[in-house]
Amino acid sequence: MSPSSPKIYVAVVGVGLVGSELIEQLLSIPEHHTPFSLISLTSSTRTIFDAENPITSSSLWKSQLEASSEKPDLRTLTEKLASLVSTHHRVALVDNTSSDDVAALYPSWLERGISVVTPNKKAYSGDLNLYESILRASQLTGAHFLNEATVGAGLPVISTLKELVATGDKVVKIEGVFSGTMSYIFNEFSTGKSDGPAFSSVVSVAREKGYTEPHPADDLNGFDVARKLTILSRTIVSGSHTSTALPILQSFASVETASLIPPALEDIPTGDEFISRLPEFDAHFARLRADASAEGKVLRFVGVVDVLGGVVKAGLEKYSTSHPFATSLGGSDNIIMFHTERYGARPLIVQGAGAGAAVTAMGVLGDLFKLVTND
Amino acid sequence: MSPSSPKIYVAVVGVGLVGSELIEQLLSIPEHHTPFSLISLTSSTRTIFDAENPITSSSLWKSQLEASSEKPDLRTLTEKLASLVSTHHRVALVDNTSSDDVAALYPSWLERGISVVTPNKKAYSGDLNLYESILRASQLTGAHFLNEATVGAGLPVISTLKELVATGDKVVKIEGVFSGTMSYIFNEFSTGKSDGPAFSSVVSVAREKGYTEPHPADDLNGFDVARKLTILSRTIVSGSHTSTALPILQSFASVETASLIPPALEDIPTGDEFISRLPEFDAHFARLRADASAEGKVLRFVGVVDVLGGVVKAGLEKYSTSHPFATSLGGSDNIIMFHTERYGARPLIVQGAGAGAAVTAMGVLGDLFKLVTND
Repeated sequence: MSPSSPKIYVAVVGVGLVGSELIEQLLSIPEHHTPFSLISLTSSTRTIFDAENPITSSSLWKSQLEASSEKPDLRTLTEKLASLVSTHHRVALVDNTSSDDVAALYPSWLERGISVVTPNKKAYSGDLNLYESILRASQLTGAHFLNEATVGAGLPVISTLKELVATGDKVVKIEGVFSGTMSYIFNEFSTGKSDGPAFSSVVSVAREKGYTEPHPADDLNGFDVARKLTILSRTIVSGSHTSTALPILQSFASVETASLIPPALEDIPTGDEFISRLPEFDAHFARLRADASAEGKVLRFVGVVDVLGGVVKAGLEKYSTSHPFATSLGGSDNIIMFHTERYGARPLIVQGAGAGAAVTAMGVLGDLFKLVTND
Repeated sequence: MSPSSPKIYVAVVGVGLVGSELIEQLLSIPEHHTPFSLISLTSSTRTIFDAENPITSSSLWKSQLEASSEKPDLRTLTEKLASLVSTHHRVALVDNTSSDDVAALYPSWLERGISVVTPNKKAYSGDLNLYESILRASQLTGAHFLNEATVGAGLPVISTLKELVATGDKVVKIEGVFSGTMSYIFNEFSTGKSDGPAFSSVVSVAREKGYTEPHPADDLNGFDVARKLTILSRTIVSGSHTSTALPILQSFASVETASLIPPALEDIPTGDEFISRLPEFDAHFARLRADASAEGKVLRFVGVVDVLGGVVKAGLEKYSTSHPFATSLGGSDNIIMFHTERYGARPLIVQGAGAGAAVTAMGVLGDLFKLVTND
């Protein structure tokens, strides 16, 4: 960044775990160094906005927001931010919520020249109309939408995929363990041996550690993976110079997703009841593990974007015990393999923690830096 | 990119393997889509320049260049490019040579507002004065220097490191197999067993396959790895908000590098003679392999930037047969592990081919896209 460039105005919506961490990271950049000016915060109950006196103190922002009597109002925020956009001043709105309602506003922001940065998967994996509106609005004004943290948190997944596609490499297949929760569960459950802990006990421990949603069915349904695959698939389709065999996904519900929820437990209302009944299905999962083990394989819940085959799917698959999904994974790591024409027989691999507030916020802040062409 | 943004003027110096591939990739972007205007090519014998009629044809650029009677003259090129720089027009010079002389000109380009993109390691791993001149010139004008392809070719290594550092993560240690040649040699030579092929025969086969330099000592000396470590180390030092324990490297020669060249073979003038005498030292390397195997380990030639310990070193190390450097590597893959505060016990890992014209050119073109804040 040239020292004379005006700072980028940043407004943050959502100050929960990820939002708070993002604010801390952003404010920890030394003031003479930062390309950002944090001018607005919005929680579910309050909002502050001051372009003249930006927020600079990591010890004060919480009390500044709490002292506000202004109710959150995203329409008013949009107007105020739009009035700041000019050829010399760039404005970015960071959505740290997981709200569909906030996601629905992205086109209106982009149309006004406000760039959108977010770890929220809803807009990019939801209804195709919304996604196409986002593309159109961004093309119209040149405002950017950046969503690195929607897949693999801070890992370089979206940026790597965009670069492969933009430079004309042909992506053949992307295959990965995209859910930290599913990663943990199967790294514990299936190590290549024919026996091991009961599936229900692994899920129960994962829940106690806070690795699952309060209702584990929200992980085991595979929807989180389907959403991430939708984002990757759309990134390929919209970025490619030529057409691909990939289906145009109407939403993440179009992904072929093999849920792990036993049919009999599909409508269990609470996580506690779900956990208490899951042992009924331990024998089923133990059999899958034994079958895999007999073939010298492990079970992993993976997502696949098969560009050549035109298939986008999520489900349980078997991998040889010498495959990186078996040898290299641990904890709740994500691992993503990009098989492409240029990389040939040996894929480009990215691996590491794909969830958690610190690394997710880092992915968001990294996107903000991309707006500066930082080097 | 906004459709109304003027294109970035690109001048390419060096049209060898990587340069030619870069030109092909750049010209394969559909014309209505490309943010680049390729206005100049320079080989070792000829140059062309035409900002009014940019080069657009991937079938004609070679003959256009060959038809030129203009001799290469980088001073004149600099003047012509500098005259195009304005607030509306950005200019980038791509150096695809491996020349020290070309590298020495980077500060003069950056001072004139010309961004520099390159896979050439010389400037960033050479004399500290040159590196500091580059930083100063870039800060002065806001022109960018981007060098993703200097480490790991097209793999996201430099960009990932810059993002970790810029967002305030504390890098604890970077550890990796940074040389495709060394990767191939030790993946073949040391698999965890106590015996295997002779070291000299592995090196000889690698040379026949074109994986080594014509004189294998140019790989076995470890300088390529030392240069890459210098680049990573300087990227951390110059990007960090706070001071680190890392030494200020005067050049890549300051890296603690344990060469694999047997002392008796250090001054052998030709690759052929070197290969013919290498078998004299097979017993030495076989003993190292057997010792590692007795500990359940493999040998790998790795580079380490130990930020906490303040050490930058390259050399042969032993890794457990269950370590990713043993299980996950194959072919001539690079693998890079980023141990950081935020990633905790499980590092962020990037792996894949780290050499070859197609992936190197992709790293260069990816950097050009960063100048556009492409999304």
